[in-house]
Amino acid sequence: MPRMVASVLRDGVRDEVAVEEPLEIRVDGAPLAVTMRTPGNDDELALGFLHGEGLIDSPHEVGLTEDLAANIVDIAGPLRHDPGARRFYTTSSCGICGKGALEEVAVHAPALGAGPLVDRALLASLPARLRQPTFERTGGLHATGLFSATGELIVVREDVGRHNAMDKVIGWALGNGRVPLRDSILCVSGRLAFELVQKAAVAGAPILVGVGAPTSLAIELAADRGMTLAGFARGDRVNVYTGAERVRPSAGA
Amino acid sequence: MPRMVASVLRDGVRDEVAVEEPLEIRVDGAPLAVTMRTPGNDDELALGFLHGEGLIDSPHEVGLTEDLAANIVDIAGPLRHDPGARRFYTTSSCGICGKGALEEVAVHAPALGAGPLVDRALLASLPARLRQPTFERTGGLHATGLFSATGELIVVREDVGRHNAMDKVIGWALGNGRVPLRDSILCVSGRLAFELVQKAAVAGAPILVGVGAPTSLAIELAADRGMTLAGFARGDRVNVYTGAERVRPSAGA
Repeated sequence: MPRMVASVLRDGVRDEVAVEEPLEIRVDGAPLAVTMRTPGNDDELALGFLHGEGLIDSPHEVGLTEDLAANIVDIAGPLRHDPGARRFYTTSSCGICGKGALEEVAVHAPALGAGPLVDRALLASLPARLRQPTFERTGGLHATGLFSATGELIVVREDVGRHNAMDKVIGWALGNGRVPLRDSILCVSGRLAFELVQKAAVAGAPILVGVGAPTSLAIELAADRGMTLAGFARGDRVNVYTGAERVRPSAGA
Repeated sequence: MPRMVASVLRDGVRDEVAVEEPLEIRVDGAPLAVTMRTPGNDDELALGFLHGEGLIDSPHEVGLTEDLAANIVDIAGPLRHDPGARRFYTTSSCGICGKGALEEVAVHAPALGAGPLVDRALLASLPARLRQPTFERTGGLHATGLFSATGELIVVREDVGRHNAMDKVIGWALGNGRVPLRDSILCVSGRLAFELVQKAAVAGAPILVGVGAPTSLAIELAADRGMTLAGFARGDRVNVYTGAERVRPSAGA
């Protein structure tokens, strides 16, 4: 069982904090990336990460070897493209810009279907339905949850890194034949920056909702992909920034 | 004036969100890193980033060219070491681990002096003294502030990325001859993960306080460097995890 919580002494009393440790993701033995993560579900993390980078379509394409004592996950290729050719959001004419970033995602992201139609009140309630047992002990973890269109929690993952929590959920979905995430809803415990929308878009998620604020580029990307992006979901309120056609007004809202 | 806030239409009303755009940091024309950041103080961001990586000691060692329209900052070397040889926290015996990460920081971080002695109540109050004008408009920005030992705000920077906000403050301090940050206090608006403690340690900060929870590796690194690390600073309460000798009990606390 991976150690997600560590006991520390602070102000003379015992307290619990979230564990953070590096994980190295290797491809055929060569280091590709290091992420600081909370141990647990490292296979999902590696697969979700590679999927978000457009490097794999399915976990069945690749082999996976975990050395948890050494904090290493090694993927045996072939990958879909050379990971050395990493995106830099660069266009030749104007330097580096958000437009280049949007175009890069479009290469790897599937076209979204109609997706589910959800009640606004249901959307607003999803963060409160995220089970976060380790957050409750430490206050130090982000969470991503995958919900059905009727609001049932399918899977939740917690991590010190918000991108890792999302990668783990997508890695789980890949392993369970649920990608693209056609009829489900992704929900995150924090803010909505470009990187999270990118991962959700490449996984084909029609709806992404978060507790926090979206950024300008997150909204642009969601609009570009036709994704429903909602933020500040708290209690019975939620802001819908894009894709409002999937959100049904609730009685009394 | 860089655009930090964008106007969007959501739910049929005008709203404001934090701007996020890529910035490419180049060295002698060659791309080194891309970070998704809020525009503004990009020179500080680049210098603070390079300092945290142990690549520069002072901004006077290098030249800096900004092309803000293209979102590019180009640094003319020489750097202190080849940035291609980036750390992977790897030790030959045990794979990749937190111990390797701590050792890597030790190479670049200065020895901390005694540092200031601060009242516990003052430490707890610092997050409330962080001025965050753009957060107040958007709810979407992290902030880092540099405070004097008596609690005066010296400089504050906001960014969609918490590591960018820290890099900007350290970049500002570098440009103003204030690194190492001997007698001052760094304060962040969020959680305390390894990366923030690393940047603070390399900048020689004796005290780092945050609104949120620390991770296990953040505490280990602070302990290793002799830094005072405090979290959950809210109202009149704060948890002190390491370096308690710099924190003086307050009357009534």
